[in-house]
Amino acid sequence: MPYVRVAEIAIDPAQGDRYRAALAEEIEASIDLEPGVLALQAVSDRDNPARIIVFEIYTDEAAYMTHLETPHFRKYKAVAQSIVTSLKLTETAPIALGMKTI
Amino acid sequence: MPYVRVAEIAIDPAQGDRYRAALAEEIEASIDLEPGVLALQAVSDRDNPARIIVFEIYTDEAAYMTHLETPHFRKYKAVAQSIVTSLKLTETAPIALGMKTI
Repeated sequence: MPYVRVAEIAIDPAQGDRYRAALAEEIEASIDLEPGVLALQAVSDRDNPARIIVFEIYTDEAAYMTHLETPHFRKYKAVAQSIVTSLKLTETAPIALGMKTI
Repeated sequence: MPYVRVAEIAIDPAQGDRYRAALAEEIEASIDLEPGVLALQAVSDRDNPARIIVFEIYTDEAAYMTHLETPHFRKYKAVAQSIVTSLKLTETAPIALGMKTI
C-alpha cells in the first residue's frame, strides 16, 4: 500500500494568490519529476479559502523523504514559510485508494 | 475543474473492521460503475483509527448527486448509519490535482 499523508494548512489570506501559485508549481514539478510521487491533490475550503487541504500519495515513505530534498519542494517551502500560519500533518493508513485509470 | 469534497468521519472504534470493509466495497463499485467518479481515497488517521478522511473527486456536482442515488452508495449508507458518530463535509475549490497517469 502507498504512503499517504494529509496536510491541513492555514495561510495568510492576503497572500493567497501567491501561495496557491507556488503550491501548484510545486505539485506540477513533483508529479512530472518524481517517480515516487503518485498524487498531490490540493484544495481550499470554499467557506474559508485560507484553509488548504493537501492529500499526498507516495509509493512509500522513502519517496516522501526524497521529495523533501528536491529543489522544487525547497523553493515552495521558501515561499510558504512567510505565508503559512499553521500546519497540521496527519499520517494515515490507507483504506481504499480508488482512482480512475486515465 | 472537477468537483472535490473532503469528508471527515468519526466512527465507533468497536465497529472499525465492518466500517472499513463497507467503505472499501462502496469505493470499488463507485470507481468501476460510475463514469463521474474520478477518485475516492479513504484513509484512517494512524494516531486515531476511528478518524477517517475521504478525498472525493467527481467530474462535476451532478456526478456527485448521481453518486448519492446509486445502490452501492445506499448500501454503504445503511451500514454506516449505525457506525458513524460524526460527519464533517468540506466543499472545496481545487488548487492543483496532481496525479500520475498510470
